[in-house]
Amino acid sequence: MRKIILLLSFLSLMASSACISGLAEPASKFQLTSGIVAILTDFGTEDYYVGALEGSIYAADPSVRISTISHQVKPFDIAEGSYILAKAAMWYPTGTVFVGDIDPGSARDRRFIVLTTPDSKVFVGPDNGLFTEVIHDLGLAHAYQITNQSLMNRENESATFQGFSVYGPVAAHLAGGVRPEEVGPEIKDLVQLPVNQPEVKGSKITGSIVQVDHYGNLISNIPGKLATGAGFVPGLPLRINLGNQSVNATFATTYGDVATGQWLALIKSDGAVEVARNLENAAKTIGASAGEKVTLSPII
Amino acid sequence: MRKIILLLSFLSLMASSACISGLAEPASKFQLTSGIVAILTDFGTEDYYVGALEGSIYAADPSVRISTISHQVKPFDIAEGSYILAKAAMWYPTGTVFVGDIDPGSARDRRFIVLTTPDSKVFVGPDNGLFTEVIHDLGLAHAYQITNQSLMNRENESATFQGFSVYGPVAAHLAGGVRPEEVGPEIKDLVQLPVNQPEVKGSKITGSIVQVDHYGNLISNIPGKLATGAGFVPGLPLRINLGNQSVNATFATTYGDVATGQWLALIKSDGAVEVARNLENAAKTIGASAGEKVTLSPII
Amino acid sequence: MRKIILLLSFLSLMASSACISGLAEPASKFQLTSGIVAILTDFGTEDYYVGALEGSIYAADPSVRISTISHQVKPFDIAEGSYILAKAAMWYPTGTVFVGDIDPGSARDRRFIVLTTPDSKVFVGPDNGLFTEVIHDLGLAHAYQITNQSLMNRENESATFQGFSVYGPVAAHLAGGVRPEEVGPEIKDLVQLPVNQPEVKGSKITGSIVQVDHYGNLISNIPGKLATGAGFVPGLPLRINLGNQSVNATFATTYGDVATGQWLALIKSDGAVEVARNLENAAKTIGASAGEKVTLSPII
Repeated sequence: MRKIILLLSFLSLMASSACISGLAEPASKFQLTSGIVAILTDFGTEDYYVGALEGSIYAADPSVRISTISHQVKPFDIAEGSYILAKAAMWYPTGTVFVGDIDPGSARDRRFIVLTTPDSKVFVGPDNGLFTEVIHDLGLAHAYQITNQSLMNRENESATFQGFSVYGPVAAHLAGGVRPEEVGPEIKDLVQLPVNQPEVKGSKITGSIVQVDHYGNLISNIPGKLATGAGFVPGLPLRINLGNQSVNATFATTYGDVATGQWLALIKSDGAVEVARNLENAAKTIGASAGEKVTLSPII
Repeated sequence: MRKIILLLSFLSLMASSACISGLAEPASKFQLTSGIVAILTDFGTEDYYVGALEGSIYAADPSVRISTISHQVKPFDIAEGSYILAKAAMWYPTGTVFVGDIDPGSARDRRFIVLTTPDSKVFVGPDNGLFTEVIHDLGLAHAYQITNQSLMNRENESATFQGFSVYGPVAAHLAGGVRPEEVGPEIKDLVQLPVNQPEVKGSKITGSIVQVDHYGNLISNIPGKLATGAGFVPGLPLRINLGNQSVNATFATTYGDVATGQWLALIKSDGAVEVARNLENAAKTIGASAGEKVTLSPII
Repeated sequence: MRKIILLLSFLSLMASSACISGLAEPASKFQLTSGIVAILTDFGTEDYYVGALEGSIYAADPSVRISTISHQVKPFDIAEGSYILAKAAMWYPTGTVFVGDIDPGSARDRRFIVLTTPDSKVFVGPDNGLFTEVIHDLGLAHAYQITNQSLMNRENESATFQGFSVYGPVAAHLAGGVRPEEVGPEIKDLVQLPVNQPEVKGSKITGSIVQVDHYGNLISNIPGKLATGAGFVPGLPLRINLGNQSVNATFATTYGDVATGQWLALIKSDGAVEVARNLENAAKTIGASAGEKVTLSPII
């Protein structure tokens, strides 16, 4: 009962405000935002940093909702963060604002930026290469340098953690309807990480492991289309070389296509080729880690 | 100011839409949902999987709120997941939609299902036994096989992770007001895990450890009512056998009833008997783990 | 379309309710709350406890939003929890309700309390010293003992976990607009932890490490103002003693002011002096942990 009344008094306030201000511009802003801020950091979860970031977002706009992608990116590992952010971002709705805060080194050495993609997703963070995979996977519409002081938290400014005073508050304002071009001037020359491209020779494909996941599955940078284009079909026996080891595997549709403990390669839901053992930890078995070379060859 | 105006323009839109559509059916749907989607997985928190699942939920309905039960169920451990889901679910409000995604093996080997309980909670996930404890603790009202393609994310369909293309989107639609019977045909023959029942002989109770918690407390499958029915009262000295070890303990109401480091057994807030050491880690002391037999006998 | 209609029917309900009840008091309550409940516990994330706490909050008021500060406080470590809660709380908006649940021992040995700060933040938890740093950093407006049974969850009462039956539900009601003085009588004699004060002798400052963070940075209890007051300026060479070891460092503004691997001391965004190595783990290098003495002396 209490809340119902509350809402009504709030609506009365709305009505009077609306008469003064007109409706044209805000209506167009509504199209942009999903009201969701999704965050990715290397903060870990045992300190006060996650709370400070979420607090700084809610302080700028208490009406947004926050979604956690991960706080467990390896400390300072921009490449891993770039990969995880891009693969998660594809699943969120249009108008989601992402905060990427993996930000080693000095605030003086890089800019604070906002990127937009052609499908209207918005990214906030440091210009240090963290958005390389987002740009690769989703494309780039516009990039802006954050210079608008009125969108930051100047009260608690920090030389060490830009997340709380810059990225968090700016993301909240964007999720609340501020347009990306309001954060500062458009820029062109973004810092980008090198992207390793897989190679195909005949039906032999060489790429690299970009992520070892929680299950010990080895996710490669090889697009599934490259494998199907090279003639890989479900059931095809494969020789897989990983570092200086090799295993026999089956090209499969899903883990259960092979017996427990057997090796397989399949195309993940994000479109990448993954090497795995059904119901077992492939990475521990073979001692593989991110960055290693992987080669897939059909056994004829 | 900006947001206030926005809301009003939205209300105008609502008013005109409402005139066309009538109000009877949607009003009844409102009773069903709390707008909350609570998730339990074995994904871990270091990959992009949690973000992809949350993104797939928000993409289907950006207005839901997401609550995380845990992503730390041991990989592929359906029994542990079943236990944690049931014990958490009892605390959520009526109309909450739960996603349980612990889903080893092949999508071809099991169905995607939706369950409802007599107290109007809704569960979405694989038909692999994950909901055994929910059915045991909360009861089963109806079960449906998910076949309605329009509730799934066909754009990003996956043979490996049903969470992103099926469970997440379906749960979001249910939390947004879709009725459970809209997901597909009702089914009866659900996969269930075996449930070990504790035994009482005189005043000696034998059960098993179902969970070792974060504090090293040993949670059993023995209902507190079984212990009180067997004459266990606060202060009763107990002999507790765990595997091939045994300790002297006190049947207590709360941890602080015994001195630091002393052993006790008490009835948890979820109604189960737990074996613990006050302010110490019982599991590490005695090397106990889930699945082990536990026997409680009064010392006379 | 479905949701739009739903909302309108809800508004009709509101209108009729409002006529009966009047508007004066609830309007003032609206000022108090941000609708956000921020939680800090030592539960870990692998059990059902986090879900039970979130469920108990949503069950009391499904409209609140929950923000997680951390569930990774070391088990039973009230001092660490007190520190993390205070440092996170400063970033949240006015009207946020915090649940602190680090609560070893017996429910009979301490009270359940609600505190308010001069900047209108609200804290719910045990009276065991957990709010010491909050009171130190943010100040104390009022303290109340929770005795109002109608705000608790009596249905699932627990002698072991007050979080689910008391702290969670009470916090949700406060976030929904219940005034703090409704929880029970005002109290004065709160339990507080001892607070170690740093000392300055000439330009030599002695304090202690209060937290080793995720990056291995060593956060001290030395306020930055003490360092600047003692003449520490950016670029000043320092001798830092930690336990029985010592290192040469630079007083810096941000990590990148020194080369990779070099030691530095800087003032964090929360105002405390931190000892760190740029892009390396200082704590592992030197084997330092929370509680250790730290001394900073300029090298002249």
